[in-house]
Amino acid sequence: MSLINEVVSEVDQVMGMGDERQLEAAEKLIDKNKRIFILGAGRSGLMAKGFAMRLMHIGYTVFVIGETITPSIQKGDVLVSVSGSGKTGSVLDPSKKAKDDGVKLVSVTSAADSPLGQIGDATIVVPGATKSGSGVKSIQLLSTLFDQSVHITLDVLCLMLSRRDNISNDAAKAAHSNME
Amino acid sequence: MSLINEVVSEVDQVMGMGDERQLEAAEKLIDKNKRIFILGAGRSGLMAKGFAMRLMHIGYTVFVIGETITPSIQKGDVLVSVSGSGKTGSVLDPSKKAKDDGVKLVSVTSAADSPLGQIGDATIVVPGATKSGSGVKSIQLLSTLFDQSVHITLDVLCLMLSRRDNISNDAAKAAHSNME
Amino acid sequence: MSLINEVVSEVDQVMGMGDERQLEAAEKLIDKNKRIFILGAGRSGLMAKGFAMRLMHIGYTVFVIGETITPSIQKGDVLVSVSGSGKTGSVLDPSKKAKDDGVKLVSVTSAADSPLGQIGDATIVVPGATKSGSGVKSIQLLSTLFDQSVHITLDVLCLMLSRRDNISNDAAKAAHSNME
Amino acid sequence: MSLINEVVSEVDQVMGMGDERQLEAAEKLIDKNKRIFILGAGRSGLMAKGFAMRLMHIGYTVFVIGETITPSIQKGDVLVSVSGSGKTGSVLDPSKKAKDDGVKLVSVTSAADSPLGQIGDATIVVPGATKSGSGVKSIQLLSTLFDQSVHITLDVLCLMLSRRDNISNDAAKAAHSNME
Repeated sequence: MSLINEVVSEVDQVMGMGDERQLEAAEKLIDKNKRIFILGAGRSGLMAKGFAMRLMHIGYTVFVIGETITPSIQKGDVLVSVSGSGKTGSVLDPSKKAKDDGVKLVSVTSAADSPLGQIGDATIVVPGATKSGSGVKSIQLLSTLFDQSVHITLDVLCLMLSRRDNISNDAAKAAHSNME
Repeated sequence: MSLINEVVSEVDQVMGMGDERQLEAAEKLIDKNKRIFILGAGRSGLMAKGFAMRLMHIGYTVFVIGETITPSIQKGDVLVSVSGSGKTGSVLDPSKKAKDDGVKLVSVTSAADSPLGQIGDATIVVPGATKSGSGVKSIQLLSTLFDQSVHITLDVLCLMLSRRDNISNDAAKAAHSNME
Repeated sequence: MSLINEVVSEVDQVMGMGDERQLEAAEKLIDKNKRIFILGAGRSGLMAKGFAMRLMHIGYTVFVIGETITPSIQKGDVLVSVSGSGKTGSVLDPSKKAKDDGVKLVSVTSAADSPLGQIGDATIVVPGATKSGSGVKSIQLLSTLFDQSVHITLDVLCLMLSRRDNISNDAAKAAHSNME
Repeated sequence: MSLINEVVSEVDQVMGMGDERQLEAAEKLIDKNKRIFILGAGRSGLMAKGFAMRLMHIGYTVFVIGETITPSIQKGDVLVSVSGSGKTGSVLDPSKKAKDDGVKLVSVTSAADSPLGQIGDATIVVPGATKSGSGVKSIQLLSTLFDQSVHITLDVLCLMLSRRDNISNDAAKAAHSNME
């Protein structure tokens, strides 16, 4: 089997373990009348940013923790936090603080029983291999398989949201940055 | 004279050449009912981001070109573009395009007669030394003196805006990110 | 078929059209004795950053165009540029300039005959749907399918490089940021 | 007095309290044979990035914590951490961890007796007003005066380093990004 096929098989395996009811639980929390904040570190953080960008395209008010114009997060807001291990300090600590402040939390992690997985109002489990060793075994390095599967999983969530909200491709295109 | 004093003298000299009427012209364009977009490259870009962050603190809807959640810019929006030389391609080209689309432009540059300076609906001239050789001479490298003077100049503009809008320090503090 | 399965099928279809010889051509240009620069905009840019991060983990000297500490690019360097349409101005223009300066270019695009595809010293074609309409049709919005497929494709390239260079998972883990 | 003059007077006052011996102590730790890591949050973080960019221009190997290609920090490296209050969790916690790992720390803060100020191998005190209320009083909002004064202070440190190392403006210009 070619290397491309081996990697694709790994992604297929992890995605086949995905639970659409978890996505539906997250979907219910993500609301156009709420502000959505996104948090992640490293490559997980890049996937989180990709999710944030698409949420903007389909009409949500969304901010990435750590970017320039991100305001304070408050009771009534929603936080989506991504960590493969569910233990990354720079993700877990602010997520706990936000929960304490009355923010609704969507946790995205490889391990349902991790600290981040445990505190989610909705928890999406993406069981790809992470650098801490949890999840489905992989021939790829570190948390590559987790990153790939999180990417696709959050895109499926965006697709569910865009269908629920009746957002067309043209509407999304009109919102897309025109300064590239 | 100590090195600190030499550098401070340079900043004082450039700031002494600042024209508050140019800031007032920019102030008139920056409106809570409009979306404000910010554009800059390199160290000028960092100063532009600092301005964007403070605009958010004092209640504006502001986006940084190139960041994750920045939507398309449209007629009726305001663009603040910073370039020492007024010729940086990645700043000048999008600024021209935005102007053509009906966006109001605030140009911040060392040279009023530069391409960027010429097309501003309001132009703020900050005559500190830049890496292209324009502006007041400096013992500092590259565009350091321009960066310092732009920083302070845009902070003065923020101060003018916050006073016009009656924004208190406590209100700004409440908007400041609480996830640091 | 569930929505997860529909999306995974799309990714499988695009990846099935991938050509490992194109990855091998890119692999030959990516060398530990060279500096590797990475360029992309929007969500493609996030995938490009994910590739850059992993190149660092496996021991390459790599810079992302637009980030803080990125130096000037020079003859002898390698540039990897990602654009779905192969026409994005902020990617295409600097890529052309770099080529003129003697930089080797790896183009990653959905369309071999696009301007970016045409000028690559190696070109990796990822035929997922893009927001300009090229590539395999998709139920997903904008260039989502391209982004997903680019992500996995560049991860396969990383896997090829890490095997060629005998980089273990432990070595990659040691290089991974320990400040998260 | 004009608003520009009022603000410049504040900067002059803070800079007049600067202690060049503190800069010299930091200068001794910053070495071309070491890797320099830079850490800051919010507007302080933007100033920290400006410092990192200039260090690159004058020939240092420098990384910004949180950016894409930043590797793990190790014993023998130098960390420059900026926090107005000296108590920002996302700056203080990693700084402590780095210290424990044998990293040399340069602390930049408004308060010598703050947690960050106390643990610096060299500490640069910039007594401008911060959002936590420490430092010289200011008519400007939040930590604006601290940001301005940190900016100039770190630029003076760069000037000291470039003179020590005999870096010309032309050499710095050659290192400056040519993709803007």
